[in-house]
Amino acid sequence: MDPSLTAFFEPASVAVLGASDDPSKVGGSVLANLKAGGFAGRIVPVNARRALVQGLPAVASIREAPGPVDMAVVAVPAPAVLAVLKDCVAHGVRGAVVLAAGFREAGGEGAAREAELRAWLADQPLRLLGPNCLGWIRPTRRLNLTFAPGMPRAGPLGFFSHSGALCTAILDWSREHGIGFSLFASLGNQADLTETELIEALVDDPETRVILGYVEGVADGRRFFEALRRAAAAKPCVLMKAGRSAEGARAVSSHTGALAGSDAAFQAAVVQAGAIRAETLEDLFDLARALAAQPLPASRRVVFVTNGGGLGILATDAARNAALDVAPLAPAARERLARVLPPGAALGNPVDLVGDATAARYGAALGALAGGAAAHLVLLAPQAATDALGVARAVLGATRGWRVPVLAVFAGGGRVRPGAQSLEDGGVPCYPFPERAVRALAGMVTLAERRALPREAFAPAVDRARVRAHVDRLAAAGAAPLGLAEGAPPLEAYGVPGPGAPAVEGGA
Amino acid sequence: MDPSLTAFFEPASVAVLGASDDPSKVGGSVLANLKAGGFAGRIVPVNARRALVQGLPAVASIREAPGPVDMAVVAVPAPAVLAVLKDCVAHGVRGAVVLAAGFREAGGEGAAREAELRAWLADQPLRLLGPNCLGWIRPTRRLNLTFAPGMPRAGPLGFFSHSGALCTAILDWSREHGIGFSLFASLGNQADLTETELIEALVDDPETRVILGYVEGVADGRRFFEALRRAAAAKPCVLMKAGRSAEGARAVSSHTGALAGSDAAFQAAVVQAGAIRAETLEDLFDLARALAAQPLPASRRVVFVTNGGGLGILATDAARNAALDVAPLAPAARERLARVLPPGAALGNPVDLVGDATAARYGAALGALAGGAAAHLVLLAPQAATDALGVARAVLGATRGWRVPVLAVFAGGGRVRPGAQSLEDGGVPCYPFPERAVRALAGMVTLAERRALPREAFAPAVDRARVRAHVDRLAAAGAAPLGLAEGAPPLEAYGVPGPGAPAVEGGA
Repeated sequence: MDPSLTAFFEPASVAVLGASDDPSKVGGSVLANLKAGGFAGRIVPVNARRALVQGLPAVASIREAPGPVDMAVVAVPAPAVLAVLKDCVAHGVRGAVVLAAGFREAGGEGAAREAELRAWLADQPLRLLGPNCLGWIRPTRRLNLTFAPGMPRAGPLGFFSHSGALCTAILDWSREHGIGFSLFASLGNQADLTETELIEALVDDPETRVILGYVEGVADGRRFFEALRRAAAAKPCVLMKAGRSAEGARAVSSHTGALAGSDAAFQAAVVQAGAIRAETLEDLFDLARALAAQPLPASRRVVFVTNGGGLGILATDAARNAALDVAPLAPAARERLARVLPPGAALGNPVDLVGDATAARYGAALGALAGGAAAHLVLLAPQAATDALGVARAVLGATRGWRVPVLAVFAGGGRVRPGAQSLEDGGVPCYPFPERAVRALAGMVTLAERRALPREAFAPAVDRARVRAHVDRLAAAGAAPLGLAEGAPPLEAYGVPGPGAPAVEGGA
Repeated sequence: MDPSLTAFFEPASVAVLGASDDPSKVGGSVLANLKAGGFAGRIVPVNARRALVQGLPAVASIREAPGPVDMAVVAVPAPAVLAVLKDCVAHGVRGAVVLAAGFREAGGEGAAREAELRAWLADQPLRLLGPNCLGWIRPTRRLNLTFAPGMPRAGPLGFFSHSGALCTAILDWSREHGIGFSLFASLGNQADLTETELIEALVDDPETRVILGYVEGVADGRRFFEALRRAAAAKPCVLMKAGRSAEGARAVSSHTGALAGSDAAFQAAVVQAGAIRAETLEDLFDLARALAAQPLPASRRVVFVTNGGGLGILATDAARNAALDVAPLAPAARERLARVLPPGAALGNPVDLVGDATAARYGAALGALAGGAAAHLVLLAPQAATDALGVARAVLGATRGWRVPVLAVFAGGGRVRPGAQSLEDGGVPCYPFPERAVRALAGMVTLAERRALPREAFAPAVDRARVRAHVDRLAAAGAAPLGLAEGAPPLEAYGVPGPGAPAVEGGA
């Protein structure tokens, strides 16, 4: 990891600039979060008018802080930010999180303020997150540098976001679903730290096993692509890109002043890098939970085990829709199942254990299926005698150590919740609807296939001089959108036959 | 409604055949549910060996029941079913719910048993639900004729299902989400009552405002289509069809022995009838909640009101993906908004009230937008000072009486739950993710457009004699799938130009 960022990941001391006793103010909320989160390092409140803030000894300026300070959370209004950052640098602070809005996103005076901040930053040793962001959370360090209450659970998901409001919603939502993060970062206006640098840092972060991002736009496409390619080779990467439609891109522009960029170019970069894009926010976290807990699939094959025909059929339809392979079981597997299942059970695929399936029957069926290369999806609909918790334990017991993904669908509400929770705690992601589990599995398959492709295939030998000359010619003639005639020569330089090239034989 | 079915919808008395003191048995569970549900009519337990069952006076045979009995729940094992049904007929019972499995779905002996049951039923005045089903629930009558515990909330959704296991899951799930039903029916093997008759009955049921069904196959395609067409003209109809893929259809066949039928034919029937098909079970209920609570949209136009840019962008992308219209607001609406919103707010579409939006600001913005023809989607991401419950009340207050649909997205978990609940209680469906709300809205739009089409357009004048002669010729030559050459003459009989017809002028 870039050594200039280590202060963000493991600070020994944190100062809160603009610390307040009033928890309804940002500077009060951040300090309260830092204390409540259980940060074990030193906390230094900075407040010009009080010697004690929230029970901690305060200093009037960070220049007066006793001993070194690694990180500063800047909770002062926008006009005061630059001055306190200068104090931070003077005291040797290496990283700052700037929460205040009132910069580029506000236009006019704010834009000028951000330009001044960026110009100053360029020559400083200080690294900066924000401004106009929710902040930074590192759960294993009990480090909550945000004004969002509560610490998320620690876990393997490294998440960054271009939207602060979404961050608050996701934090609130993830707490209920037991979703754990290695890092939770709101990037704001990216006066310094960008999504690209975050990706680069998360590759090297041993706590992060899956990289997740909500992206509105990418500033430096080439560097972003290279970072994503390196990241995707090391860890599963799932990105959600907003501003896909022209109208959405317009909304991005009025949101943070960022440009959404070409959606097609983003899509191509994600595919070529070996990463994957989520279609919806719910899909992003459905897939992330599966990636965090289970190995990548080795094939497109999936075997369904259910106690209800309807659930199995819905899962089968969804799987076929996603081009997964739900072929019937091989005769040997059917024979093994037949020995442990009652006569009414269906031994095809889905394997239907029928409505009165006990935990033991689930366990026995999974035991008979062990050793194959297929992913397994275990479905349960609560019926009169269903012991959802018992089934969950049987599933965990039977599949422990499997090298193929195991996902679950426990359909229903309160009656299946203890079982679903037990599965999640045991590392088997559990979904309320079959289609959502299948989409997550299909995402894992796509990611596995993309990561297995040789990256070289996407870097064709290219006649760069020819592309450059062509683009220069176009630019000289006045910039305009590229039509087929203008686009053909660069395509040809990349080895793609243009409209003037002879047609491939045998084409329709 | 067919008068032979009124006993199902409003029975004055119900007998439980096979009633037991043991609530772990089906006959004990049904009786306990009937009592716990608060059924106000007379309950007659039938048990050959006990004078009192669960505290109620029992009779040894329904023939000995005091007074008339409208409905019988048959909770005896499959081999005993026919005999007790004969007793029911002898006592004048008009409707029976048969829960036992062990009929067609079990093959062999079970299939013979069902054939015998069907043959007998054909000449009887008795109507029958099942066998092999979960049963029948009519919440407003406090009538729970199932062995699934708990009564769902009463509401406008009339739901039927070909899968009993899914029913249990959906009941469990719907209780947590406050989803209300006018009827909840598990159809099982359909020895008598089918999905088609249920649709016909629900059209005439004044409590049912939206008709929902989980369908695995349709026995009589023509009658089903006519029933659906009549139903869809009267009420929104949403169907989920399982067995869409070849593999799913295979699973349907091994599930209930039903044939899934051609998915394309089902799709065409749904579209032509003016109904809509849900892609997933989650979509089915997301759309149903919107239809139950809100009017159908008059156009494809949607206006977003949000306190977080990211949420608004995701909603915009989803809306464009669904071909909804998210054009900017008209100047007059912008001016009205500008008068009530602070300078930082974005007046385009989405309307961004920015992060510190109060309940009053939501109310003022919606007040300024009142009177338009667009659907409105109100989005909220909880931020530091967000009062989700207050926003919910403001939304309900500002939009009361609107004739366009209003949907909400409150993103997050515990922090937004009271607000989301308040919206739901007040008739504004609320979703946790923007994409799900947009999909529901897009479904409403599609349904509105289909229902507005003149049905006559789908009944072209057809040269039936020509079709019949052609099909007879094909049949005589040996049945085989229809290719283009074989399919063209029937198409032409329906007025569609075949491959031999001259091309339309001006075609590409």
